[in-house]
Amino acid sequence: MARTGGPTGPTLAIVAREARVSVPTASKVVNGREDVAPETRRRVTEALDRLGYVRRPRAAAGRPSSLVDVVLHSLDSSWSGAVLHGVEAAAAEAGLEIVVSAGLTRTRGYGPGRGRLHRLAARGSAGALFSRANLTPSQYAWLAQHRIPFVLLDPLVEPPPGVAWVGADDLGGGAAATGHLLALGHRRIAVVGGHRHRLGTAARIAGHRAALAAAGLPYRPEYERYAGFAPARARRHALELLALPEPPTAVSVCSDAMALAVYEAAAERGLRVPGDLCVVGFGDLPESRWAAPALTTVRRPLSDMAGTALRLLVALTAGDPPASLRTELATRLVVRGSTAPAPN
Amino acid sequence: MARTGGPTGPTLAIVAREARVSVPTASKVVNGREDVAPETRRRVTEALDRLGYVRRPRAAAGRPSSLVDVVLHSLDSSWSGAVLHGVEAAAAEAGLEIVVSAGLTRTRGYGPGRGRLHRLAARGSAGALFSRANLTPSQYAWLAQHRIPFVLLDPLVEPPPGVAWVGADDLGGGAAATGHLLALGHRRIAVVGGHRHRLGTAARIAGHRAALAAAGLPYRPEYERYAGFAPARARRHALELLALPEPPTAVSVCSDAMALAVYEAAAERGLRVPGDLCVVGFGDLPESRWAAPALTTVRRPLSDMAGTALRLLVALTAGDPPASLRTELATRLVVRGSTAPAPN
Repeated sequence: MARTGGPTGPTLAIVAREARVSVPTASKVVNGREDVAPETRRRVTEALDRLGYVRRPRAAAGRPSSLVDVVLHSLDSSWSGAVLHGVEAAAAEAGLEIVVSAGLTRTRGYGPGRGRLHRLAARGSAGALFSRANLTPSQYAWLAQHRIPFVLLDPLVEPPPGVAWVGADDLGGGAAATGHLLALGHRRIAVVGGHRHRLGTAARIAGHRAALAAAGLPYRPEYERYAGFAPARARRHALELLALPEPPTAVSVCSDAMALAVYEAAAERGLRVPGDLCVVGFGDLPESRWAAPALTTVRRPLSDMAGTALRLLVALTAGDPPASLRTELATRLVVRGSTAPAPN
Repeated sequence: MARTGGPTGPTLAIVAREARVSVPTASKVVNGREDVAPETRRRVTEALDRLGYVRRPRAAAGRPSSLVDVVLHSLDSSWSGAVLHGVEAAAAEAGLEIVVSAGLTRTRGYGPGRGRLHRLAARGSAGALFSRANLTPSQYAWLAQHRIPFVLLDPLVEPPPGVAWVGADDLGGGAAATGHLLALGHRRIAVVGGHRHRLGTAARIAGHRAALAAAGLPYRPEYERYAGFAPARARRHALELLALPEPPTAVSVCSDAMALAVYEAAAERGLRVPGDLCVVGFGDLPESRWAAPALTTVRRPLSDMAGTALRLLVALTAGDPPASLRTELATRLVVRGSTAPAPN
């Protein structure tokens, strides 16, 4: 019943000869090691492609795995809870189970560690979902060489062509947040972003700027701040904004946690939200509803996004690539108590 | 390299003959099916024990699994986030990975479904951790027959002897909450529990009563309510309490979510927290800090409890049962803004 054992296709020795490198060097490239010269890596990668080398997952012999891997930053946040909720439900529907791990840390450049990749390959994982990740070229190459289907959920930077990913319409969300403030009569609208060059913030800021431009308002660089998603930094930026000769009457903030830090800055200056300063968040985490006042924010449908990513992964696993590798789910403005008409 | 295939010990046919039942009936008992007469189940279970029948996990042939199962109610709560955070960290430390699933639902009596148990056995899971579960006798028997080590985290009812479990000192926490209110001068202190006969609520209420008794206060049944952890029911009970001829000046509530519902009831009656009504929660979920006022509550160290449960499971897996099968971690009162001295 079980399939026969040996590796399919050419051995690593054949690949090494073709690439004119030693077998250990070829092995290094296949295993995603970084200590290989770029030119050598290129030669080996080309040889692997040309010869159609397939590394068989060691543990998957004879049976397809019903396990998929879900790799996140941390498990201790409402963010990860929403992701796991969506992933688990979609996996159960597809008859799959999920192996969950944390560890996409800043020190690793928000990519999966080598140990993580080796473990999932050794286990014969059916596929992997990386949440808020940023993979290196050699990690992408490693996944491709090992034929491990994968999907990125909310990638930190634009993935290379051919990579499947799911995000949200952050541009539309950023435009809706600022558009809401404009409709309330605000004209001095600041924005506090996360990381300037990361996908989510870049799209939200682009939406913000587009809304301002559509309303005929000039771009004011002093109103545009980047706090790297750190609430303490967002608080400091808000204090600086409030100390400007012409302080903003409203702030659009690129995350709920940073928005609540802006509340604190307002309170420190004796200002009321929304009477003296309006605040819009981004994300719609559960705690936003409990804040005083409840936070007006842009809802990102995280559980739906996660379920969509899992279904995309299932399609890839079945060798059935979807028409579009890039899926963006709609965002939606949720108006609560932190926004009000501008003072006259 | 792989071990030889067949089952170790007696076959199911031998067990069936010994128990004077058919093989399908013996199989039903081994597989945890409910449609077996109690007397028949008893005969088969005794035969299984007497003969030392061991059902080999189908997929574990030849290699020990590095996967443990974590089964929860739902993944979409701050509660489950804290549990997974603790479990994952402890698992990573032990070189294990976690398969996460939701589905301990009320309709299933808060036990793992049969499909879940079969899957983890078929996969050769190294062990299972059930969070806030209530297993049936046949589920316990099934796990024992299949030699699957397991640990309960925060079980809903007292598990049978021999079962390893981890909880928190809810009795001490309940006493600390009410003791805090007594120290603030309150004498009319109500309590809103979850489920009267479940472990957590029973312990918290016992602590509450002990604190009242120690202060020489009489037991007032009209001040003791059970809302089944449903915020809407907690709100209704609070409204009833506030409508009493002698309304309480303080309420000790057995969960944070229900405590926030008591806030709403107070607001509906035009009462301020803590000026007119003091509220203490239980659990210390992240949202408690964002409430207005921030909630005084009893912290249960969920991540630590989950990590402890995982380490206990690792010990059981290694055939190294710990000295105590029952572990209770300390709880701690966290005083914030929802409690104040009693009015004179």
